[in-house]
Amino acid sequence: MAPGIVSPQRSFEHERASSGPAGLDASKLRVTKTLHPTKLPPAEDLTFGSHHTDHILQVQWTSEHGWQTPQIAPYQHLSLDPAAAVLHYGFECFEGMKAYRDVWGSVRLFRPEINLDRLNRSAARIALPTFDADELLKLIARFVQLEERFIYGRRKSGYSLYIRPVIIATNSNLGVAAPTSALLYCIACPVGPYFPAGFKAINLEATNSVVATRAWPGGAGNHKIGGNYAPCIAPEKAAKARGFQQLLWLFGDDDRITEAGTMNLFIVLRTEQERCFELITPPLDGMILPGVTRDCVLSLARERLAPLGWTISEREICMSEVVDAAGVGKLVEVFGTGTAAVVSPIRSIKYRDTLVQCGLSRHQSARAITTLFKEWIEARQYAVEEHPWSVPVSQIK
Amino acid sequence: MAPGIVSPQRSFEHERASSGPAGLDASKLRVTKTLHPTKLPPAEDLTFGSHHTDHILQVQWTSEHGWQTPQIAPYQHLSLDPAAAVLHYGFECFEGMKAYRDVWGSVRLFRPEINLDRLNRSAARIALPTFDADELLKLIARFVQLEERFIYGRRKSGYSLYIRPVIIATNSNLGVAAPTSALLYCIACPVGPYFPAGFKAINLEATNSVVATRAWPGGAGNHKIGGNYAPCIAPEKAAKARGFQQLLWLFGDDDRITEAGTMNLFIVLRTEQERCFELITPPLDGMILPGVTRDCVLSLARERLAPLGWTISEREICMSEVVDAAGVGKLVEVFGTGTAAVVSPIRSIKYRDTLVQCGLSRHQSARAITTLFKEWIEARQYAVEEHPWSVPVSQIK
Repeated sequence: MAPGIVSPQRSFEHERASSGPAGLDASKLRVTKTLHPTKLPPAEDLTFGSHHTDHILQVQWTSEHGWQTPQIAPYQHLSLDPAAAVLHYGFECFEGMKAYRDVWGSVRLFRPEINLDRLNRSAARIALPTFDADELLKLIARFVQLEERFIYGRRKSGYSLYIRPVIIATNSNLGVAAPTSALLYCIACPVGPYFPAGFKAINLEATNSVVATRAWPGGAGNHKIGGNYAPCIAPEKAAKARGFQQLLWLFGDDDRITEAGTMNLFIVLRTEQERCFELITPPLDGMILPGVTRDCVLSLARERLAPLGWTISEREICMSEVVDAAGVGKLVEVFGTGTAAVVSPIRSIKYRDTLVQCGLSRHQSARAITTLFKEWIEARQYAVEEHPWSVPVSQIK
Repeated sequence: MAPGIVSPQRSFEHERASSGPAGLDASKLRVTKTLHPTKLPPAEDLTFGSHHTDHILQVQWTSEHGWQTPQIAPYQHLSLDPAAAVLHYGFECFEGMKAYRDVWGSVRLFRPEINLDRLNRSAARIALPTFDADELLKLIARFVQLEERFIYGRRKSGYSLYIRPVIIATNSNLGVAAPTSALLYCIACPVGPYFPAGFKAINLEATNSVVATRAWPGGAGNHKIGGNYAPCIAPEKAAKARGFQQLLWLFGDDDRITEAGTMNLFIVLRTEQERCFELITPPLDGMILPGVTRDCVLSLARERLAPLGWTISEREICMSEVVDAAGVGKLVEVFGTGTAAVVSPIRSIKYRDTLVQCGLSRHQSARAITTLFKEWIEARQYAVEEHPWSVPVSQIK
């Protein structure tokens, strides 16, 4: 090309450069397929996070140039400078979402827009770059289609592909400052049923600020960032040694309930009126992770239980109220919610000197409402009930 | 060797294995020197963290086998599984410490045992492995001796080698659990004077839980872990846009002072008695990082100011007390302390609608006590005053 003559493409590139850092653009995706596909692990070996799929989705970002070319490549280790900010200052956020194979064999994502909006909010909270969520959704859909064989068959219900998008800071200046380069990546692992032999109810130990606090006003407990997790492990380990599988995180002088382990918590109380119930979960006050399953439970409850006379409450609830309700036989059931287990029944809560029984008889693993929510949600996840929450990946373009 | 005949060494190895995971052992260190030593950067380019030395110290750990062979190798990138726990759940802790060249040319570490004890406490808080601090000190001494040329000359005071030990979780199961493998590593960077052109006083903006809180009772704010840093950046960036270099983190309904940016805070008040003063810093209540420089200031103050009639207080202090003191001319000076700057003078604190002036006249950058502490501490760091705080690396064996 003669000097002075600028091709349309170069001119476009120039305009892009002059209009600031580039946005995330799924249309630029480059795919390099693995030459060595993994042998699928036996279905019974699919414990959470123990196997990964064949590929990794990666997009580099710099403050100067914005989002670079998205790449799907064979699963590989990351090469990080030992001074990379993610390794020192906790610049890391992530999501947990799932793809399911429906009864007709199609692969579907479940409410993925909620996960990607939350990832954007987590990123902004810790000064990591945000992105166009529609573009990331397209990339994840393409990634899931490539890994489709890892979602075990139609005949085995409870199987899914756990998808883990992550953003980490990669710049290697040791100063504590807003990241100037980052990597968004996504890996996935095949998972089997969380309760392969039926529900298993767990025992919680309540903890308050004297021992350990998970979140606080003005903190970042409502975001999915690395720093919220590591400090919970040592106190949880101590509780396990005392026979409690998870901690119930309380807050404040009045021992308000927040979350249980890494789950949102729901409590069913019998009300004063005959045959009337209240379903309670703590409100999104900045200390509670806005769980996708939490939102599903609230939506379904408002749709299907409220018409039956139930009260559906996002409100503060203290341990004293739970203890009192149990004392007069009004504590009906308690369960946790999360992407991994959907719902997880709670057998008991150790609070100070009291062991609060949560409505299960000795040989019972879950009560009616807990079981019902699992069925209702899974019906939409696997599209047994066709519903907008479940999006076929083939329709994401 | 004939079957059945066990060599003494094998027998020893067997005993070791049967007595549990191996402890950190500096005597096993293997050193691989770089074949391509870096050209030393010009002295005026030594801003914090912008250059690294030639080598990295690394020790692998597994829950099964304990601490492996320590290695010093050429500076290199880390290869991490994208599922490595450090990248997801904040399993990372670190230290910041310095080596100095004294007036006779010998290299010294400054109170390194405090840093290594703190690293052990940080590691335990987030379920990372702990270690024999004496062994790590020997390894760091050997590492510093190898990198000695990066500590700039005797004639230029204010230069040092910033040393960054780190422990990260490396296991790649996505479950949130206590790490089963980890990497302890240490990198270093040559640094120049923090205030090359003399002190520069900064302006703080006070913030409470309505905007952002750094730490909380039952949290992990008293530990040097990654999760304490990333969430501070976005609020700090917003304050910078309003003209304040750092945040003053308040806590509780009474707006108690905790830390400033990543520094401990000291306040000097004139007391009721003529020519008497009180030096105040918040107590180690679980929300305050137990800073090495904080401890130096308190020690020196008790040794040299208390005999002059000063009161040295580790006590709670609220913003109302600071505002009131400033109003009646009793706020004498305010400064932050940390490894990077030693002491950092504070010009003003924005609190609600008030801009509290901290005792500096318009053309003044630091007042007497702030300056004195810097001189006293540096005299020991550079061994101008021979003192047990400063340890020649050649004596660490």
